[in-house]
Amino acid sequence: MSLITLTTDFGTQDWFVGTMKAVIAGLDPNAKVIDFTHAIPPGDLRAAAFALAASYGFSPKGTIHLVVVDPGVGSQRKAIAIQTANYVFVGPDNGVLSWALAKERIEAIHLLENPAFFLPSVSRTFHGRDIFAPVAAHLGRGVSISQLGPKQESLVTLPWPQPVTARGFARGEVIYVDQFGNAITNLDVPTLDSLGQGELKVFLGSKPVCPVAAFYQAVPPGRPVAVVGSSGFLELAINAGNAARKLKLRPGTVVTVRAD
Amino acid sequence: MSLITLTTDFGTQDWFVGTMKAVIAGLDPNAKVIDFTHAIPPGDLRAAAFALAASYGFSPKGTIHLVVVDPGVGSQRKAIAIQTANYVFVGPDNGVLSWALAKERIEAIHLLENPAFFLPSVSRTFHGRDIFAPVAAHLGRGVSISQLGPKQESLVTLPWPQPVTARGFARGEVIYVDQFGNAITNLDVPTLDSLGQGELKVFLGSKPVCPVAAFYQAVPPGRPVAVVGSSGFLELAINAGNAARKLKLRPGTVVTVRAD
Amino acid sequence: MSLITLTTDFGTQDWFVGTMKAVIAGLDPNAKVIDFTHAIPPGDLRAAAFALAASYGFSPKGTIHLVVVDPGVGSQRKAIAIQTANYVFVGPDNGVLSWALAKERIEAIHLLENPAFFLPSVSRTFHGRDIFAPVAAHLGRGVSISQLGPKQESLVTLPWPQPVTARGFARGEVIYVDQFGNAITNLDVPTLDSLGQGELKVFLGSKPVCPVAAFYQAVPPGRPVAVVGSSGFLELAINAGNAARKLKLRPGTVVTVRAD
Repeated sequence: MSLITLTTDFGTQDWFVGTMKAVIAGLDPNAKVIDFTHAIPPGDLRAAAFALAASYGFSPKGTIHLVVVDPGVGSQRKAIAIQTANYVFVGPDNGVLSWALAKERIEAIHLLENPAFFLPSVSRTFHGRDIFAPVAAHLGRGVSISQLGPKQESLVTLPWPQPVTARGFARGEVIYVDQFGNAITNLDVPTLDSLGQGELKVFLGSKPVCPVAAFYQAVPPGRPVAVVGSSGFLELAINAGNAARKLKLRPGTVVTVRAD
Repeated sequence: MSLITLTTDFGTQDWFVGTMKAVIAGLDPNAKVIDFTHAIPPGDLRAAAFALAASYGFSPKGTIHLVVVDPGVGSQRKAIAIQTANYVFVGPDNGVLSWALAKERIEAIHLLENPAFFLPSVSRTFHGRDIFAPVAAHLGRGVSISQLGPKQESLVTLPWPQPVTARGFARGEVIYVDQFGNAITNLDVPTLDSLGQGELKVFLGSKPVCPVAAFYQAVPPGRPVAVVGSSGFLELAINAGNAARKLKLRPGTVVTVRAD
Repeated sequence: MSLITLTTDFGTQDWFVGTMKAVIAGLDPNAKVIDFTHAIPPGDLRAAAFALAASYGFSPKGTIHLVVVDPGVGSQRKAIAIQTANYVFVGPDNGVLSWALAKERIEAIHLLENPAFFLPSVSRTFHGRDIFAPVAAHLGRGVSISQLGPKQESLVTLPWPQPVTARGFARGEVIYVDQFGNAITNLDVPTLDSLGQGELKVFLGSKPVCPVAAFYQAVPPGRPVAVVGSSGFLELAINAGNAARKLKLRPGTVVTVRAD
């Protein structure tokens, strides 16, 4: 029995994801499919890369992770499958897989070029259904990535915005805003630990915003707070509110932390 | 192992679809259920008919396609199961199945009248849970449609709005607007091909709107474009935008294509 | 093969539910997971309690019902598993399970305290992924609730707002507003039956609003109507409209029914 995860920007209002699952079920009836998310903002490679990096590692060894956020569909961008020590990743070669792969040991990268593993008829606009879903299903049935097409030595990577640190100071940025308006930054626990033992305060520009606390309820409802969230990164939240809306946070917004 | 697809207007905010799946799991533990969509606008038979027609054919032979868009629930409308050469279709006899069935060879139509295949208690408002889900599960376990109720010779059909063509000219209409604001028309590839070799232009009323192109990125971001989408029909889009909103397109809007 | 249902306020935009399912698939590859809903308003214990009570009973015997609506996550609130005659319920001990449990025969309640059944690393903010999902998966594989932690004699319950009845009169309140704006009340069929044989009329304050009818279409489109819905309770609706918005109904709004 194979396990395939899906991360796309196809939404769930229409039948797009459903037809991908129907294709998979036809080729690999024993495949189990898990939706990570289909609500990536259309074409947002960084959001998709972060969503995958935050979730893939909770899957059992052998899982096939399929990501279809593919603004270049129909153009010359390549499609790839990557075997790592623990997983197989499948998607367009546009960087969307790269933040997850940065944490994995890559064993091989192959292009998806063998049409024997595609649907018989490939549309110009929906490779998710016509190429990626059938490839994932064939992988689930035991096809090796070397059968999919020629080997490739490297892949497109998205730059990870590394935080800047100095004495008692770290500057990062918002990477992802979740549906509750929590703004997840690139400031991880080692970065915060490097600031020493003092109390930590979060600034937006020169304006102090909130303390770093252990949980949302450390502040009264309606007040901002920063906590290390379940992805291991500092996130700005408002207790029982929407921090992104109230504090005007979006991906790229600079966030600074200072030790007192 | 059986495969059941679901197309409904029940949404996913409440527990309605979940209870249908629970009923299916109780009667046929090996059934796999695939959601095509639950976001059909409430009671919109044409949207549901189109969604089903665009997706059912990607499922393996033997799949049971269940559609519950049923504005007449509780009234005298009939419920039916249809065996075709490849699939079984189940739903209310209100035309919602008819656009998919137009492409299938029908072998038999039976009414759902045998309460042995319903839940013991049938509510007046939720036949999806109380009649359709258990019927689909029983079919998945091998019950034949002839056991469900008396044979019926015909079914309610929705008229498919056939495009009108003339020399170098085709007039169709918008059939379905997807969540990204792309407006899918009834103009298919044979219709477009019949217009000859010239460049094709799309008009709304007498106003030229955009060319027919091979992919969205054939025009700059923010500009309208028409492409043959993954369902095989011409759709009006705006590159990186929402065509339905910007061009005021809705189901029924007349769309004309002319060869230059 | 085990069956696990999920009721949460995690939404489906981000990867939160997906990682819970990945954790379950890793620990119990044969588990089938059914989503009841992930759209409970954040932290709304009554909405979650009602959603569970309305849906759990349609699942086969042996189903594991997992509810994670947990505003106190990270605080001192306890987490519990409850064995009843038919099911196992798992969730925080904050009352969210209590309306379903009121209809079940409880056999044992145990605290979730044995970290052997948690993920190796437990975050402060996402016990759904780190504690509840792995516990449910272990239960699915046959672990008994007595292995999870010490026995507990009682649990937190939410008060069910009992309707007040008098001669030909019943006063209840709105419990849940569904996505279509239908307002489900606590007025059940026995309560309505107790009002006698006359025609029933619904009042908001002293204002007569609509009749109690057998189905939505008993009134013209756009007009209010009250019907006994699929959960067995009287609900206020507008035929082809949104009753909650138009009539300003929300959980707690008082609804009165009088026999003519």
